[in-house]
Amino acid sequence: MQFDVIITIALKEGMLDPEARAIRNALEHLGIPTLSLSTARRFRLGLEAPTREEAEARARECCVRLLANPVIPRYESEVA
Amino acid sequence: MQFDVIITIALKEGMLDPEARAIRNALEHLGIPTLSLSTARRFRLGLEAPTREEAEARARECCVRLLANPVIPRYESEVA
Repeated sequence: MQFDVIITIALKEGMLDPEARAIRNALEHLGIPTLSLSTARRFRLGLEAPTREEAEARARECCVRLLANPVIPRYESEVA
Repeated sequence: MQFDVIITIALKEGMLDPEARAIRNALEHLGIPTLSLSTARRFRLGLEAPTREEAEARARECCVRLLANPVIPRYESEVA
C-alpha cells in the first residue's frame, strides 16, 4: 500500500531560532507585529509499506537516521 | 484576540527540488526507498487581531510581502 507521510522537523523548545527572530523583525517593520514565531522544515513522503504501522516505523526511521539530529531538533511524523 | 497561524511555503508544482532529490537518494542508501518526496518551510505565528478574517488577511500579507516570492513558491496559511 502507498502512504502519504508528513514529517515536521522543528527546533526543540528553548533553542535559539535566529531566522525566526529576523522574520519577526522584518514583519514588524512591515507593520505586522507578531506575538511569537517559530520555523520548521516540512517533508512530504510517499512510502510503499505493507501496513500503516510499518509506514509509521519507516517515517520515524527517516527522522532518526537522516532528517533530524538527536540534539537540536524535535520531530513529528504523521501518516495521512 | 490571539490567533495561532500556520504558514507553509512549498515549491510550485514542477519546480526542481534538489534538496528533495538528495534526501531521496540518501534514504534509498539507508534502505528506505520513497515513491516521492517534497520539501517545504513551515512557520507558526502568534498574531493579535480583532477577528479571524483579519488574522487570515495578515497571514496572507506575511506570505506575499515577506515569506514567499511570487514566482517560485506556492503558499498556504491556516488559522488554528
